[in-house]
Amino acid sequence: MESCICPKFEAAIEILAKKWTGLILRVLMEEKRRFRDIREQIPQMSERMLAERLKELEASGLINRQVYPETPVRIEYTLTDKGKALQPVLDSIEKWAHEWI
Amino acid sequence: MESCICPKFEAAIEILAKKWTGLILRVLMEEKRRFRDIREQIPQMSERMLAERLKELEASGLINRQVYPETPVRIEYTLTDKGKALQPVLDSIEKWAHEWI
Repeated sequence: MESCICPKFEAAIEILAKKWTGLILRVLMEEKRRFRDIREQIPQMSERMLAERLKELEASGLINRQVYPETPVRIEYTLTDKGKALQPVLDSIEKWAHEWI
Repeated sequence: MESCICPKFEAAIEILAKKWTGLILRVLMEEKRRFRDIREQIPQMSERMLAERLKELEASGLINRQVYPETPVRIEYTLTDKGKALQPVLDSIEKWAHEWI
């Protein structure tokens, strides 16, 4: 059982191990956000890095990118169900890290 | 709050992101083990890799290495409290990975 779950476990960890990913997911757990809202919440992260991470998270099926054809165009990011389901994972890692690191 | 927990979160993820680490911790969650017992449980992993991971986990304070001066010498690995506290983290990652990956 342990051996067979290993590649999935590693795939999950690989997503979370990229710098800023945990924090971006945390910000989106609260509510949908525009690019600049996320930037404001994580000012240490560059725009380029945020754009890259958002593309990766979309490709992994963790977030949706919704474009509203207004002027100027409005783009909002929301978590998918797969993304929302990471909440207990983030909670447990943060709890452990806070207590033990 | 989120920003301040970030380095700890990343340090925690960094430990778990190394190949085989999750599986080694899982094996040790059950009970104390000798080197060869762990090898038997994870036959795909090389001896050299296991030795390296065990050293890292000991350095991170997640496992204890207990040497019994018998002939032949007996060495057992056990989880520390810090290591045992990772159980809910492993559980939550495995649950998510199993459902969504």
